[in-house]
Amino acid sequence: MGKQRVSVILFDGFQLLDVFGPVDLLSCLPDLFEIRFLGPENAPVASSPGFAVSVTDRRDAPPDPDIVLVPGGLGTRTLVQDEPFLAWLADYASRASLITSVCTGSAVLAAAGLLDGYRATSNKRAFDWVTTHGKSVDWIRQARWVEDRNRWTSSGVAAGIDMTAALIRHLHGAEVAKKASDFLELEVHPDPAWDPFAR
Amino acid sequence: MGKQRVSVILFDGFQLLDVFGPVDLLSCLPDLFEIRFLGPENAPVASSPGFAVSVTDRRDAPPDPDIVLVPGGLGTRTLVQDEPFLAWLADYASRASLITSVCTGSAVLAAAGLLDGYRATSNKRAFDWVTTHGKSVDWIRQARWVEDRNRWTSSGVAAGIDMTAALIRHLHGAEVAKKASDFLELEVHPDPAWDPFAR
Repeated sequence: MGKQRVSVILFDGFQLLDVFGPVDLLSCLPDLFEIRFLGPENAPVASSPGFAVSVTDRRDAPPDPDIVLVPGGLGTRTLVQDEPFLAWLADYASRASLITSVCTGSAVLAAAGLLDGYRATSNKRAFDWVTTHGKSVDWIRQARWVEDRNRWTSSGVAAGIDMTAALIRHLHGAEVAKKASDFLELEVHPDPAWDPFAR
Repeated sequence: MGKQRVSVILFDGFQLLDVFGPVDLLSCLPDLFEIRFLGPENAPVASSPGFAVSVTDRRDAPPDPDIVLVPGGLGTRTLVQDEPFLAWLADYASRASLITSVCTGSAVLAAAGLLDGYRATSNKRAFDWVTTHGKSVDWIRQARWVEDRNRWTSSGVAAGIDMTAALIRHLHGAEVAKKASDFLELEVHPDPAWDPFAR
């Protein structure tokens, strides 16, 4: 398997750790993953606390994706109503072999129709809001993350790191995943059913 | 206690999660912490995988700090030899009530003379290199993080998140710290002696 391109979809008000947890883990394996940050313009995109991150590609000239990652954050509240963006995302993500989200990013996937007929999860505090999106999505409340065919969705924020570790394990085996998490001195939760935050 | 200003020292080649783990946790408490990103210029600063982050303040016109945080990353290898930077850091950090580092950021603190006579820890893979810096630093290999008076240093990358949770606990109590970590669906290691990465 060659290097896989991971397209991270940035938007105003994304949650920092939703992006940089997965990205820092994937960045430990630069021979396996190439990460791109897609934004609406060639300008830095502001996270929910305001800190801005540079983009590598504009959405209207995006690289071919192998993996699409949609983070969560307060900005998802407006993104789920942005029809042109959702149409773009539905088309773009359909070209990827894996479609993933962290936290309330699954509301965006659902709003784009990308979770219809799939099992999925999301942030537990925003769960009731998230689950109003999409048609016939089988929303799982008690889960650190949910894998259903090529859709991987995680619970809130830090859960994205565990999902990413599992994704690396799935693609490249446990040894490679452990190499990356050890590099970050990171203890990973390997059980997708572990979820003390579901209450 | 009023809002505390946290000055994060950015430099070329910082490790993403060293910054955004602590920052995302502190950002859950915007009434308690105001976070600033200090860079050498008014231009985005590149992380070790390349992704750039905007700064809020230049080092030559910095805000008064309550807490200084120095992340690690490959860029520390050159920073520990940058005498003008180290002199600036020694002066600037001495104005803060708490001086903290994540990962190999403690090599930078040590090189600036800020850990002389203190106990400290660092990244476990880089430990032998880190501990060549500073004079009479009592380096602790087996520790998730080390607190010694107003110097708090953590082990590699993800350990910075646990140290930050402990710092919030120390400053504002367990309930506030749990509010922040629950918001991120984050399981924190509360024991500074927990360190499976020390081998």
